[in-house]
Amino acid sequence: MTSHTGFAAIAAQLDGQAIELPSWAFGNSGTRFKVFGSAGTPRSVEEKIADAATVHRFTGLAPTVALHIPWDKVDDYAALRSYAAEQGVALGTINSNTFQDDDYKFGSLAHVDPKVRRKAIDHHLECIDIMDATGSRDLKSWLADGSNYPGQADLRGRQDRLAESLSTIYDRIGEEQRLVLEYKFFEPAFYHTDVPDWGTSYAQVTALGERATVCLDTGHHAPGTNIEFIVMQLLRLGKLGSFDFNSRFYADDDLIVGSADPFQLFRILFEVIRGGGFGPDSDVAFMLDQCHNVENKIPGQIRSVLNVQEMTARALLVDRVALDAAQTDGDVLGAHGILMDAFYTDVRGDLAAWREERGLPADPMRAYAESDYQSQIEAARVGGTQLSWN
Amino acid sequence: MTSHTGFAAIAAQLDGQAIELPSWAFGNSGTRFKVFGSAGTPRSVEEKIADAATVHRFTGLAPTVALHIPWDKVDDYAALRSYAAEQGVALGTINSNTFQDDDYKFGSLAHVDPKVRRKAIDHHLECIDIMDATGSRDLKSWLADGSNYPGQADLRGRQDRLAESLSTIYDRIGEEQRLVLEYKFFEPAFYHTDVPDWGTSYAQVTALGERATVCLDTGHHAPGTNIEFIVMQLLRLGKLGSFDFNSRFYADDDLIVGSADPFQLFRILFEVIRGGGFGPDSDVAFMLDQCHNVENKIPGQIRSVLNVQEMTARALLVDRVALDAAQTDGDVLGAHGILMDAFYTDVRGDLAAWREERGLPADPMRAYAESDYQSQIEAARVGGTQLSWN
Amino acid sequence: MTSHTGFAAIAAQLDGQAIELPSWAFGNSGTRFKVFGSAGTPRSVEEKIADAATVHRFTGLAPTVALHIPWDKVDDYAALRSYAAEQGVALGTINSNTFQDDDYKFGSLAHVDPKVRRKAIDHHLECIDIMDATGSRDLKSWLADGSNYPGQADLRGRQDRLAESLSTIYDRIGEEQRLVLEYKFFEPAFYHTDVPDWGTSYAQVTALGERATVCLDTGHHAPGTNIEFIVMQLLRLGKLGSFDFNSRFYADDDLIVGSADPFQLFRILFEVIRGGGFGPDSDVAFMLDQCHNVENKIPGQIRSVLNVQEMTARALLVDRVALDAAQTDGDVLGAHGILMDAFYTDVRGDLAAWREERGLPADPMRAYAESDYQSQIEAARVGGTQLSWN
Amino acid sequence: MTSHTGFAAIAAQLDGQAIELPSWAFGNSGTRFKVFGSAGTPRSVEEKIADAATVHRFTGLAPTVALHIPWDKVDDYAALRSYAAEQGVALGTINSNTFQDDDYKFGSLAHVDPKVRRKAIDHHLECIDIMDATGSRDLKSWLADGSNYPGQADLRGRQDRLAESLSTIYDRIGEEQRLVLEYKFFEPAFYHTDVPDWGTSYAQVTALGERATVCLDTGHHAPGTNIEFIVMQLLRLGKLGSFDFNSRFYADDDLIVGSADPFQLFRILFEVIRGGGFGPDSDVAFMLDQCHNVENKIPGQIRSVLNVQEMTARALLVDRVALDAAQTDGDVLGAHGILMDAFYTDVRGDLAAWREERGLPADPMRAYAESDYQSQIEAARVGGTQLSWN
Repeated sequence: MTSHTGFAAIAAQLDGQAIELPSWAFGNSGTRFKVFGSAGTPRSVEEKIADAATVHRFTGLAPTVALHIPWDKVDDYAALRSYAAEQGVALGTINSNTFQDDDYKFGSLAHVDPKVRRKAIDHHLECIDIMDATGSRDLKSWLADGSNYPGQADLRGRQDRLAESLSTIYDRIGEEQRLVLEYKFFEPAFYHTDVPDWGTSYAQVTALGERATVCLDTGHHAPGTNIEFIVMQLLRLGKLGSFDFNSRFYADDDLIVGSADPFQLFRILFEVIRGGGFGPDSDVAFMLDQCHNVENKIPGQIRSVLNVQEMTARALLVDRVALDAAQTDGDVLGAHGILMDAFYTDVRGDLAAWREERGLPADPMRAYAESDYQSQIEAARVGGTQLSWN
Repeated sequence: MTSHTGFAAIAAQLDGQAIELPSWAFGNSGTRFKVFGSAGTPRSVEEKIADAATVHRFTGLAPTVALHIPWDKVDDYAALRSYAAEQGVALGTINSNTFQDDDYKFGSLAHVDPKVRRKAIDHHLECIDIMDATGSRDLKSWLADGSNYPGQADLRGRQDRLAESLSTIYDRIGEEQRLVLEYKFFEPAFYHTDVPDWGTSYAQVTALGERATVCLDTGHHAPGTNIEFIVMQLLRLGKLGSFDFNSRFYADDDLIVGSADPFQLFRILFEVIRGGGFGPDSDVAFMLDQCHNVENKIPGQIRSVLNVQEMTARALLVDRVALDAAQTDGDVLGAHGILMDAFYTDVRGDLAAWREERGLPADPMRAYAESDYQSQIEAARVGGTQLSWN
Repeated sequence: MTSHTGFAAIAAQLDGQAIELPSWAFGNSGTRFKVFGSAGTPRSVEEKIADAATVHRFTGLAPTVALHIPWDKVDDYAALRSYAAEQGVALGTINSNTFQDDDYKFGSLAHVDPKVRRKAIDHHLECIDIMDATGSRDLKSWLADGSNYPGQADLRGRQDRLAESLSTIYDRIGEEQRLVLEYKFFEPAFYHTDVPDWGTSYAQVTALGERATVCLDTGHHAPGTNIEFIVMQLLRLGKLGSFDFNSRFYADDDLIVGSADPFQLFRILFEVIRGGGFGPDSDVAFMLDQCHNVENKIPGQIRSVLNVQEMTARALLVDRVALDAAQTDGDVLGAHGILMDAFYTDVRGDLAAWREERGLPADPMRAYAESDYQSQIEAARVGGTQLSWN
Repeated sequence: MTSHTGFAAIAAQLDGQAIELPSWAFGNSGTRFKVFGSAGTPRSVEEKIADAATVHRFTGLAPTVALHIPWDKVDDYAALRSYAAEQGVALGTINSNTFQDDDYKFGSLAHVDPKVRRKAIDHHLECIDIMDATGSRDLKSWLADGSNYPGQADLRGRQDRLAESLSTIYDRIGEEQRLVLEYKFFEPAFYHTDVPDWGTSYAQVTALGERATVCLDTGHHAPGTNIEFIVMQLLRLGKLGSFDFNSRFYADDDLIVGSADPFQLFRILFEVIRGGGFGPDSDVAFMLDQCHNVENKIPGQIRSVLNVQEMTARALLVDRVALDAAQTDGDVLGAHGILMDAFYTDVRGDLAAWREERGLPADPMRAYAESDYQSQIEAARVGGTQLSWN
């Protein structure tokens, strides 16, 4: 029943897998209806980093933390970098924010007003300064730019202005740095979004140059979109810069990756591997971007990186030689069965052993629950203002 | 080219059309990313009512204002009722709120904890007390109850508890009052919603009794749903209680009614008329439920009620005798053409004249823009806290 | 890591699981663009039954075959019944067909013309006569009725006529028989469908009586619909008559059940079990309704019943006591994890042993491939006309 | 209330508007469930062309007819060209067909087997030969290539082979000819499609060269897709080759253009005009691609070209100077209102006059109904085989 060669053959490939955590996942988040708080939520960037480092300590999977500017703005980034290193993690991608200032009501890099565009460009340049200080490689730009009503905006003019703004930012990107442009189907704009699909992001970054790539957020597509196809295509075109992992049933729900459609996550990771996006020779960045609206945040992040690891293991198990033969033969059920065989393989026991060999807890979820980290932070983090998207 | 009998034949039917305005439309609203403020936004229930009355003064279409509890809680509802009457409007539907208290993190009427259910029931009973004081007929309940992850909740248990809670509330509903249960496809819950579709709302209210009906929010359906079919069905089953009008391109975008798909609004109103839901003999309530995130609020509401009126006029123009004949003959293009003929008829000039005959401004949008109401409230409403969903 | 009690505890519950096969799955099917033939395709009802019996012989899961009238019309149903019994299967649900006759261009049971309605009613009565002869319990009615253009049809009139037609049919349903009404979101009608959703089917069958129930086809919903919620609701309301299993990525793709979203199938079966729809005391019927457009048909059906069995086993493994406790505690990640633990459990080895204990092949897919059934039918079934939807 | 300058100012721009008709629209079409025939349906290519010419005679809008190979294969294309000219139309786009031969079960230009790819390439080369004979400019390729099950196909390998095949075809495209690559979200493949979105088509044609462009079929997108944005983007990138117009509520319903969402058609045409895609200087081709499953075919085509013309007129009426000012001012409701004002303007009377000035019937639908063309073809076209997709 099992065609694959077993976990032993792929165990080594799991070494070095790294999934970046977003600092904001440790703060409160919610919907337009309500943001629920929870005991122990960080009140400072440092506390967020400490939580992220905890996830890494229990899983070995999350060596870096992404920052969001201005949410994670500090006076001394060198100090923050040192603090992170002491905790056992490094600072990663810098995410810009051009959607919370009142000036951005009608957009940022695509805004009709050159003063607002300049402000948004300058914000990105500031982010690059921060990257220089933190040693970050990637500047990720997700834009809330768009409109709510037909006629409200000149779609074409906005696209041209966006191209110009991006070009100005790109000119400042260092030789070892990258600009990563995220696309999103809708929200917060409800009629049009200036970077709604991978095609637009691809066309824009291609016009910029080699160090500009696309960020694929798994929750940012129209219903029914075949996401693994886009993964394949962007890898083929050399433009897949990074992932924002999460899952969804409806819109950009930002649920735990793998919780809504585990088989889709498996297919995505299979295309990542098949297309050369996994392993030491790939520069594709893997990051979470989730909102733990109702579940506990730290175990939510632990669950998430484990889900990615487990699915990566399953995707690595696919017997690609047999698969290729079945595909070439037009053996539909045979080829499908080879893929499903890997998906249905229960890798959890093997991964528990794999972790123990590496000095990690066999069951990170249980280990965290049995640790006193949560009770400590709940006791210690009293007073102050819990961070959310601010 | 035109088969219908013309505006004169339907003008009288437009008299008495009434569209209820939601008090919260005059406060700030937004997305989880940002709520933008605007000059002149009300700081009190009274200021909201004054704005709603202004919409009515310019259009003659909006004689009542719906309240949301606790957002619109006051000490003296009799005084509020008088204040509204002085402004020229009456108080309408009372909307309950069981989604903003920390206790409601995991639901309200369907919550697993009887204490939380009791709290949510008591809130509804309080709303009925308010209805007694305001003279409101309808208690509208939209529930945020649901879950984000498969396994998080016992779907069946929640449904049974919901039925029990609703029954307790319904027992308190007065002879001349109604309980209206709204359904919603998703948001803020992202895996399951306890009242996700019209079928669930219908099954629940049917179990309650005659004075329980369904509220159809035009933005609360799955992509592609034929909403006018549901209108037809609920009217046929005698269970269409009220509408929450708005429009959408993607999810529950809460845009201005008629702005995203005017033809859909036309089809909905045609089924309302065809099914007996329009006119003095119908007790279907028409209400707006929108968020003016980026546009001005008062003209946003004026535009909305005008859109409903214009589409109602077009829907009334349909030559139903000719339509029936074409349908019976299997004349697909003929029947479709009769419908489209009414839709494409430009009723705006006739409506302008209709308004002038009734002492209303011919062009309410322009009249408002040329009035000094906006500048007055911007000057007067300084200080205090602008209201949003609070 | 594993909380459930293991396969041994649930093995016995798998005995008696029965999934009905549709006779038409063994004929050719396709899209509007092309129907591809394949060697060995049946040319007669008897050959379809022989193929279905083969699926049962290899899996022990498919003891009955559904017929489609007129596709499976024969002169002597008693003889057909005996033939099936000799092959080792029984005749099951009778499916009516009111979509292929030219008279049905504008509908059948809801048609505006009483003569066409009468014809469609008479067809259903003929199906009941056949049921009497075959010993079938269920008459399943899926209607292609609908319209393509707004205005083409009077939605309300059609609904009323549908109710009347169904009532006439229901009057003839025997005491031990059932009328099962299927709903479908769209196709072949592209504007409106007369039974588009579970709510409509529920309202219609409730008006008929106890022996009228709803058929849930897993491919007949709007994008994003939470199907397990509907399963829960229909079981709660006592109106879930039967399933048509298949899977889909986009529309009514009719792919192999469990191939597109295995986790969704798991959730559906979990709700079936939780709601009392599984086991000897339930009268919910489980049937496949798929199109093997590009894959081999007999192994396609074997794969399908195995998928349902494997997912049923996983759903039975859920530790419901622990789940209930976690749900009651508001332990989101704990409850979700209990569900996922069962889903990720690899039951295939245990099921292989379970089969061998019952004299069945451990790996039915391999056993079929290694048998000579396929080569025999390919050699024998030469000449004649391969059956498709005719 | 009206800001635009009126019909007189735009009347001249409507001259020369040309919408290509597909020959196959005059044959029977349907769904996988049934293809309904109708009296008078053509039995030959010539009869299809005669019907298309009739549409042009009544509307002045449809001077060319697209051919589909092999459906419209003839021995003597020069003779066919002359025949068309005598009827008053010219031959237009040549559409290839690589989905109906048994060899194409698993694809064509992307097939894993080089022999099948060669066959599909040769078919395209044959189409170019036909173009040379007919004087056609465009070779349009819509591919049914894809797969139904995850694992069935190597997505990346197929994409690379597609690129190679297209390159071979492109090498043969004449200096004055173009290769137009159509994309489609799904159907007939249900898991993946090899050219599923505009991004893929854009990436593929960009790799080919200047004479390769994208075909946008308005029915080939995911639910909720903002199509006018894609129109804008492709025009901006210089890669919008042609349109296949139709409309849809759910999937690729192929309904009459403008019948499902007229406002969407208006927005699309507005972006066409705004982006330079309309008028004598544009080489964007406008074509219908519809299926008249239940309505009469010739009036179905007349209705369609009229819908495009009427919406073009409305889109031309937009006061772009005022719109630009409102957009620049951030006047959301003002800008939206300017767009809606043009949309709601009833241009039908002006267009009737415009037609009469040009010797065309004021009301082409009525003129056709009052003509005897339909009765003539119904009487004359007896015997033979009605054409459908064959």
